[in-house]
Amino acid sequence: MSLPLIDLRSDTVTRPTPAMLDAMFRASVGDDVYDEDPTVRALEQEAADRFGLEAGLFCPSGTMTNQIAIKAHTEPLSEVVCEQTSHIYLWEVGGIAFHSGASVALLPGNRGRLTAEQVEAAIRPVNIHYPTTSLISLENTHNRGGGSCYELSEIESIAEVAQRHNIPLHLDGARVFNALVATGQSAKEYGRLFDTISVCLSKGLGAPVGSVLLGSKQFIQKTKRIRKVMGGGMRQAGYIAAAGLYALENNVERLADDHARAQRLGATLAAQPYVATVLPVETNLVIFKLADSMPAEQFLAKLEEQGIKASSFGPQMIRFVTHLDVDDAMIERIETALTGLQG
Amino acid sequence: MSLPLIDLRSDTVTRPTPAMLDAMFRASVGDDVYDEDPTVRALEQEAADRFGLEAGLFCPSGTMTNQIAIKAHTEPLSEVVCEQTSHIYLWEVGGIAFHSGASVALLPGNRGRLTAEQVEAAIRPVNIHYPTTSLISLENTHNRGGGSCYELSEIESIAEVAQRHNIPLHLDGARVFNALVATGQSAKEYGRLFDTISVCLSKGLGAPVGSVLLGSKQFIQKTKRIRKVMGGGMRQAGYIAAAGLYALENNVERLADDHARAQRLGATLAAQPYVATVLPVETNLVIFKLADSMPAEQFLAKLEEQGIKASSFGPQMIRFVTHLDVDDAMIERIETALTGLQG
Amino acid sequence: MSLPLIDLRSDTVTRPTPAMLDAMFRASVGDDVYDEDPTVRALEQEAADRFGLEAGLFCPSGTMTNQIAIKAHTEPLSEVVCEQTSHIYLWEVGGIAFHSGASVALLPGNRGRLTAEQVEAAIRPVNIHYPTTSLISLENTHNRGGGSCYELSEIESIAEVAQRHNIPLHLDGARVFNALVATGQSAKEYGRLFDTISVCLSKGLGAPVGSVLLGSKQFIQKTKRIRKVMGGGMRQAGYIAAAGLYALENNVERLADDHARAQRLGATLAAQPYVATVLPVETNLVIFKLADSMPAEQFLAKLEEQGIKASSFGPQMIRFVTHLDVDDAMIERIETALTGLQG
Amino acid sequence: MSLPLIDLRSDTVTRPTPAMLDAMFRASVGDDVYDEDPTVRALEQEAADRFGLEAGLFCPSGTMTNQIAIKAHTEPLSEVVCEQTSHIYLWEVGGIAFHSGASVALLPGNRGRLTAEQVEAAIRPVNIHYPTTSLISLENTHNRGGGSCYELSEIESIAEVAQRHNIPLHLDGARVFNALVATGQSAKEYGRLFDTISVCLSKGLGAPVGSVLLGSKQFIQKTKRIRKVMGGGMRQAGYIAAAGLYALENNVERLADDHARAQRLGATLAAQPYVATVLPVETNLVIFKLADSMPAEQFLAKLEEQGIKASSFGPQMIRFVTHLDVDDAMIERIETALTGLQG
Repeated sequence: MSLPLIDLRSDTVTRPTPAMLDAMFRASVGDDVYDEDPTVRALEQEAADRFGLEAGLFCPSGTMTNQIAIKAHTEPLSEVVCEQTSHIYLWEVGGIAFHSGASVALLPGNRGRLTAEQVEAAIRPVNIHYPTTSLISLENTHNRGGGSCYELSEIESIAEVAQRHNIPLHLDGARVFNALVATGQSAKEYGRLFDTISVCLSKGLGAPVGSVLLGSKQFIQKTKRIRKVMGGGMRQAGYIAAAGLYALENNVERLADDHARAQRLGATLAAQPYVATVLPVETNLVIFKLADSMPAEQFLAKLEEQGIKASSFGPQMIRFVTHLDVDDAMIERIETALTGLQG
Repeated sequence: MSLPLIDLRSDTVTRPTPAMLDAMFRASVGDDVYDEDPTVRALEQEAADRFGLEAGLFCPSGTMTNQIAIKAHTEPLSEVVCEQTSHIYLWEVGGIAFHSGASVALLPGNRGRLTAEQVEAAIRPVNIHYPTTSLISLENTHNRGGGSCYELSEIESIAEVAQRHNIPLHLDGARVFNALVATGQSAKEYGRLFDTISVCLSKGLGAPVGSVLLGSKQFIQKTKRIRKVMGGGMRQAGYIAAAGLYALENNVERLADDHARAQRLGATLAAQPYVATVLPVETNLVIFKLADSMPAEQFLAKLEEQGIKASSFGPQMIRFVTHLDVDDAMIERIETALTGLQG
Repeated sequence: MSLPLIDLRSDTVTRPTPAMLDAMFRASVGDDVYDEDPTVRALEQEAADRFGLEAGLFCPSGTMTNQIAIKAHTEPLSEVVCEQTSHIYLWEVGGIAFHSGASVALLPGNRGRLTAEQVEAAIRPVNIHYPTTSLISLENTHNRGGGSCYELSEIESIAEVAQRHNIPLHLDGARVFNALVATGQSAKEYGRLFDTISVCLSKGLGAPVGSVLLGSKQFIQKTKRIRKVMGGGMRQAGYIAAAGLYALENNVERLADDHARAQRLGATLAAQPYVATVLPVETNLVIFKLADSMPAEQFLAKLEEQGIKASSFGPQMIRFVTHLDVDDAMIERIETALTGLQG
Repeated sequence: MSLPLIDLRSDTVTRPTPAMLDAMFRASVGDDVYDEDPTVRALEQEAADRFGLEAGLFCPSGTMTNQIAIKAHTEPLSEVVCEQTSHIYLWEVGGIAFHSGASVALLPGNRGRLTAEQVEAAIRPVNIHYPTTSLISLENTHNRGGGSCYELSEIESIAEVAQRHNIPLHLDGARVFNALVATGQSAKEYGRLFDTISVCLSKGLGAPVGSVLLGSKQFIQKTKRIRKVMGGGMRQAGYIAAAGLYALENNVERLADDHARAQRLGATLAAQPYVATVLPVETNLVIFKLADSMPAEQFLAKLEEQGIKASSFGPQMIRFVTHLDVDDAMIERIETALTGLQG
């Protein structure tokens, strides 16, 4: 196969551009366990400033920023309210129980999105048989929900419930910039509504490694010990933080291109006889269900023959993800492959 | 109020009869931490024999027998499959996460009962993002399901799934004798299908304190250290074990009376204009929903004026429980109170 | 063997006297999970009053009262300061780590007793590499230290350190009444110095089952949920609580007799050629080391032939415990056996 | 201050040389969560091969490799045998309790080194009151012991104890190459004696970030899920892994220079009147105690005035660490500063 491989499995697979790589290797570094890496410091502050929050904590992964936030907000014998297919519950190895000894109240969302009514009904009353509700966590965009975005008004209503019950509100923002770009909502509004936000740099933003957890100064101070025990204290981390800084400055607005490409793929898929349903495409994820006549393994194998990789996402479910390393020419190749599948 | 109080809140409220109390008094005891209490030993063996299992472990509560079983079957980073309103998840203070660091796969049951298909679909595939499924737990009768009973064929199908996947199957048998008496199923069949069974002595059976966990000799041996760390190692526990032994010998068959009385109450409730729905009454629990015209607090207050206590069980939901200390005369008093409520 | 067995293994082996048994079976009971057992309530209040503390929590064992206290005082990523052979560390199955996820700072005591200087030096400075010191726990009398008692002045100095650092101070009072009776210290002084005290009823006091955790109302309220998750929520627990109440009223002063008998045994042992050393006897425990010429197994076997049971307590170490079921005639039998061992 | 700063606080503070940086830049990368980063793969295999072990796992820190190993070897209700000042106990935030729910048996070493007799005596007998001993962990060189090295014969004896009791043996090899270079012992011998080894790349070896955990293929496979839940799953981690590969190939033998420089500093310090004692210098750590006449804060402040940074290491204790960024000219500057301190 002489054509370049097209990898639609995830937006985590991107490799740095030469410009990003150049930024990485010009980075000033220091020992971040001693709080002395200037590039890490700059990234944490830049990310915090974007959302109008006070401070940030750079970590090697989004699982770590989420799990640190959950640990810092909760204690054993408490409970986290989240959507039943949310990443923090479904794909973080049961970390809520493992790290925090906390229970989960799992709510069925509309493509991953909860309503304020659902959230409020899930808050446990005081009773010695119950854990106490200690955290509400949203995910936006929602991965399992097909990259769906919350309306700002719904987030506001949920934040109002959280504040009224004095329960912190966390955002798993693995793809928060996709949500902001797609909806036109502002990062500062998010910083006002959420107590903490986990922002991933190595998905759509294209950095090789890292996520930042954002919150108040006091909260972030508390999380440093948790990051240490989890093994996230890195030394001269500035090299990878520099990529994150570059990504924040250069790779946010271009997410709109990924979204447009995902729309094209969604429309093409919807027109194929072997596709049963396509979830509405709101951002850079395209989740669809194959008709029974097209077994998922066969579909993936045929694409792979054309140099296109994608992921199974449940029985007969497939996920395509557009990202920095998928350009218009590749979209055309994919469309050709999709329309030719039955030929 | 000269008439005796009628307590329908739970079958846990029963007080020992004189005969049970006499059995307690005359118990031979020893230091059970040294495995030297003959009455505890006799109770554990008697309970195990009934179900055709090898060994038993006497504990101060059903929460302890369930949580010990879960701890012994699982390890951190694994997951327990159970119904979303099961007692082990809903009313044991998030103990699955707290004691075992394990995640939960919560399935929606039909009045608390799962199907083999549901269970099999919830078993996690091998993937570094997932916990491993380490336990399937059923509850029979199912409390939140209104005392509902499993068909034996469904338990057999679930056991087949469990065995095929090499996953242990636990029964929360807080009210397992109610299920056996109501369905005519045999305890020995249960012992064949479940790896471990938690049997409560202080609910319908009328003992003041205690539950027994049943399983293989090897399993029960393993649980002794877990009971110790949880603080369940008691010294001369024979006094309370004697009540359990008495209960097993004298109070099982009479559960049919409780069921008949619950049926009467269910029928009476279904005929009242202020009752919206009554769950099918299969055993000794009667769960019903009040019409909006009758606020739950008002309903409970009016009953209390008549010397009748019952429990709120969710918004507009009420639970009545019949038991050893509720006789036919009391049922008549309750019926009179219910029919007169609108007068 | 027609003579009654003498059991020196532990003061946990006592059986209720007829008077205690009578008190048990006349007890008024209720469902204690609903806070409705009057005898449990009376025992909790009586124990609290003795120590001048506000409230009590009845539990099935001293391991549970200790572990609940530790859980309620600490959180994960914190550390408990205690003696390196203390019961909470050595004999509670690693429960500090298991239940509380807390680390331990283990200090070498003088027969189990710490100094204020040691305690203060063990308090961790603020550093992201360290857990935070969240609890100081003493044990008095100290089991592994041979029933040794603290000077009140040392407890006062340790309490001063604890208060200055704002760290709670817990007492594992499994044998606290032995300490009070032996030293003439007052329970009320203890209640003033310790934040929480675990009092065991089933050791020297002779009750069959149970311990009480004492503390402020707010603290005890917090522990009810922890007792629930650990499985310590019992129903009609008044039967066993009644024994504890009887013990508090009748079996405290008589501990002086146990101490005198232990003194006699200690003196006899010290005079035997096959005994290498005897720890100073301060209360009801006699810990001694056998000379190499007398293997511990042989010593225990020879005593058993005479109807006397005792415990191995480490290589060549033996522990004798006097208690309610060891009278003067038995002491004479033991002395005869000991002096005759070499004959 | 025109002279370059000399940082003796730790060997973690080194910055990559241009050659290392160049290797990083040119690294081939992929998504390591999908096991597709060739440079990470090469580093893991190279490190494993050096020690004759089968497989490796690249992680962002040595705390993570240690804590993952502990988690994978143990289970809750078990116990880890280690030295009382070992890094895994003292400086990893109580992670043994936090992540693994495991207890610790803390032994006093000879400058951090245990004997086989000590280790064997610490293995818990079978008893329901005890956790089970699940892991023995050594640290070589030992940080708190002043960079002390084990004799190979002692490691062999400890390994023999471990094998006889069927308990795995882990090495915290944060500075294992310092030990190998200083003693002439071989990495392959270590791989034969230890079940798992944690090797740090960002200390003496000079890489900016990362450690590798080594063990059998089966063990490393098991750890991938634990790394995931701890948040150590990184994406294009090859950039930092490349530095580790470069370090393994280029920076091992040169540790002998660091050791020689540490020797020089140790000798100079021993000759100063304000130094009370210097621990024997075996590798690149120099730990010494100041005389009372020289308060530690004053000593550190005076050095800082000369552009030299060092660390407090307990009351009146100071630690100097030599490393890649400390050359002979700097050693002379330090010696001048030390001898001039009293002038």
